Amino acid sequence: MARIVMKFGGTSMAGIERIRTVAARVKTEVDAGHQVAVVVSAMAGETDRLVGFCREAAPLYDPREYDVVVASGEQVTSGLLAIVLQAAGVPARSFLGWQLPIATSDAHASARILSIDTGSLDAVLASGAVAVIPGFQGMAADGRVSTLGRGGSDTSAVAVAAAMKADRCDIYTDVDGVYTTDPRIVPRARKLKRVTYEEMLELASVGAKVLQTRSVGLAMKEGVRVRVLSSFTGDGGADQGTLIVGDAEIEETEMEEQLITGIAHDRNEAKVTLADVPDRPGAVAHIFGPLAAASINVDMIVQNVAHTGGSTDVTFTVPAAELARALDVLEGERERIGFSRMLHDTKVVKISVVGVGMRSHAGVASTMFKALADRGINIQAITTSEIKVSVLIEEDYTELAVRVLHTAYGLDAPVA
Amino acid sequence: MARIVMKFGGTSMAGIERIRTVAARVKTEVDAGHQVAVVVSAMAGETDRLVGFCREAAPLYDPREYDVVVASGEQVTSGLLAIVLQAAGVPARSFLGWQLPIATSDAHASARILSIDTGSLDAVLASGAVAVIPGFQGMAADGRVSTLGRGGSDTSAVAVAAAMKADRCDIYTDVDGVYTTDPRIVPRARKLKRVTYEEMLELASVGAKVLQTRSVGLAMKEGVRVRVLSSFTGDGGADQGTLIVGDAEIEETEMEEQLITGIAHDRNEAKVTLADVPDRPGAVAHIFGPLAAASINVDMIVQNVAHTGGSTDVTFTVPAAELARALDVLEGERERIGFSRMLHDTKVVKISVVGVGMRSHAGVASTMFKALADRGINIQAITTSEIKVSVLIEEDYTELAVRVLHTAYGLDAPVA
Repeated sequence: MARIVMKFGGTSMAGIERIRTVAARVKTEVDAGHQVAVVVSAMAGETDRLVGFCREAAPLYDPREYDVVVASGEQVTSGLLAIVLQAAGVPARSFLGWQLPIATSDAHASARILSIDTGSLDAVLASGAVAVIPGFQGMAADGRVSTLGRGGSDTSAVAVAAAMKADRCDIYTDVDGVYTTDPRIVPRARKLKRVTYEEMLELASVGAKVLQTRSVGLAMKEGVRVRVLSSFTGDGGADQGTLIVGDAEIEETEMEEQLITGIAHDRNEAKVTLADVPDRPGAVAHIFGPLAAASINVDMIVQNVAHTGGSTDVTFTVPAAELARALDVLEGERERIGFSRMLHDTKVVKISVVGVGMRSHAGVASTMFKALADRGINIQAITTSEIKVSVLIEEDYTELAVRVLHTAYGLDAPVA
Repeated sequence: MARIVMKFGGTSMAGIERIRTVAARVKTEVDAGHQVAVVVSAMAGETDRLVGFCREAAPLYDPREYDVVVASGEQVTSGLLAIVLQAAGVPARSFLGWQLPIATSDAHASARILSIDTGSLDAVLASGAVAVIPGFQGMAADGRVSTLGRGGSDTSAVAVAAAMKADRCDIYTDVDGVYTTDPRIVPRARKLKRVTYEEMLELASVGAKVLQTRSVGLAMKEGVRVRVLSSFTGDGGADQGTLIVGDAEIEETEMEEQLITGIAHDRNEAKVTLADVPDRPGAVAHIFGPLAAASINVDMIVQNVAHTGGSTDVTFTVPAAELARALDVLEGERERIGFSRMLHDTKVVKISVVGVGMRSHAGVASTMFKALADRGINIQAITTSEIKVSVLIEEDYTELAVRVLHTAYGLDAPVA
């Protein structure tokens, strides 16, 4: 007997027929003698519909009321899955966020889970019934409905798994695992059997949309074994999907063999260049201080060597969605910063190579730079972490760059 | 300063533009210095959509999970109205059923309101903010979401008005008041300034769809002054709509002048005839006992005089929606009841004349029978109460019968 959390995304919950498929998968685990809690998303498209209502209601809506509105999507699917499970002969009941409760911070619309009371959950699981829990929602300290921000259902699932000390947390989605890169770009991309939390975190943060970044961070912190697998293919067997685990579980040899685990790309970056910034101490602080104060996340930063006239150009990236706001903030600081011109560009993409094997190998970055240079792809900015190297390039080169790097690091699957 | 409950139905909440119109009406009352609680329905069509999901999920769904699903419709509109009110400069916040809480019985899907805790509600109203409360929902003693059954939002509004000792409960709907009869049938129908609770109760129970029957009963019990008025026309001024109040508020002269208040029709009846039921003691109990046990509500009953052979025909009506179930129950009891044949007919309509003035006047029924007989309309069954006479006739005569009676009782408006 194991304790399992199963999480199903919006496409898996889109309509009663699909919910029946979900119920069949849950029944398989129950019939195998496991205790199961299921975390569900809203039906595909429903959250967008509800968010649309809020935006139409007021551009600056009260996030506490927004939470009341958007949390209803997962409420509906959790009730429906409980009904369908019962009809399939599986005892089940739903627990809304306020019923367990799932206690969150008061940061409505982007709350963090603080704790989950598992008293009633444990009792239901011990009785042999399945607990169905809406993802994305909780109850804030003010006693009101809260939500975790978009994609928060993955985080809910991992948090529930941690709280109930689950043996694993299976995230059922519309892909059958984590790949070395996007298979729509590289058909010979390979599905990974395992990745480490850190690799997944880097992959998620640079555009691999399999899992929400925050949920991976939480899984790493809590040591929750997460598996990503398809709700549409396969039978959920132990050999399926991709397991996301700690370094310790990845064998040394496996890690050594595999220098790079995956290649990701992220089109949601925008580049900003401030020309002729005075080259004096504190100038950079005048740029990034106000952006930080406005909660705009700056990623890559490049400062050119000073011009002969004692000024320099500063280039950096921000999320494309924040570009307009960033330009406003900087325009307001023009005098203090002292730049002559402000340029921006959204036709850029960030390409990242990720792998824990990188730690013990030199030359990963230079392989990347050489492979791109050989195809005449110009690098506009670079950023690195312990297990990741990212470059910013012109967007039109996205697919070419991904393919070239996939081959350069030996990731292509053997031709069948 | 008055305390007011304003209730808005599904057509009034159908989309953000209409919710803005609702907010404008609420603002008028707030600007006039009143304390306002608003009770809202789900967007028109939404409850049907959610009920449809449940039915598709399982024909015999768990009512506790059904409640989780269908309660979401009012949750959405209450959050949205709070947002729209805030955008209009009116402080507002939503209170879900479990938050006040609105305590209900454990009869999920058709729960009764037991009590409403007004502590947090009073605090919000005293602060000058509007409380927005989803209708139709509450929290059962088991700590789970409950709903009151279809049309329950009217009942929610009256219950909230009673709990907060509101000066009045304004039910905004898609008609501008209660009429002497359906104006689509009789263009010269008159809007009533006032009706008594009992009249409204009889009118609602026989097909006037302005207010849910249960809400009128509750208003009568709690002495809540209810007003029905349009959310699409008029300005909500004191002269608008129809006031539903106790006998004491209707002046004697007004009551004496007006013999009959209104004429209603109800097509949702089905007639069942059991032929050749043995004419012996207890036979009738064998018919109606099993129907009552199956929670099938029998309305009109006619027993013919015994045939020479010692048997009789028994005719009665049940709600059309329950007909199939009623026939099943009776077929199962065929031997015990001993009838030879079972006939049924859904092409019938119940026509009712209602008025408190009836109490002090004889001849109301005979006026009805004569008016119908003059037009050759055959009466199949009759039932009466202190302030109502109802007859069952062939459905094709519905409009004719309503018009004839409207004129016979002098209800036609003067020709302009």
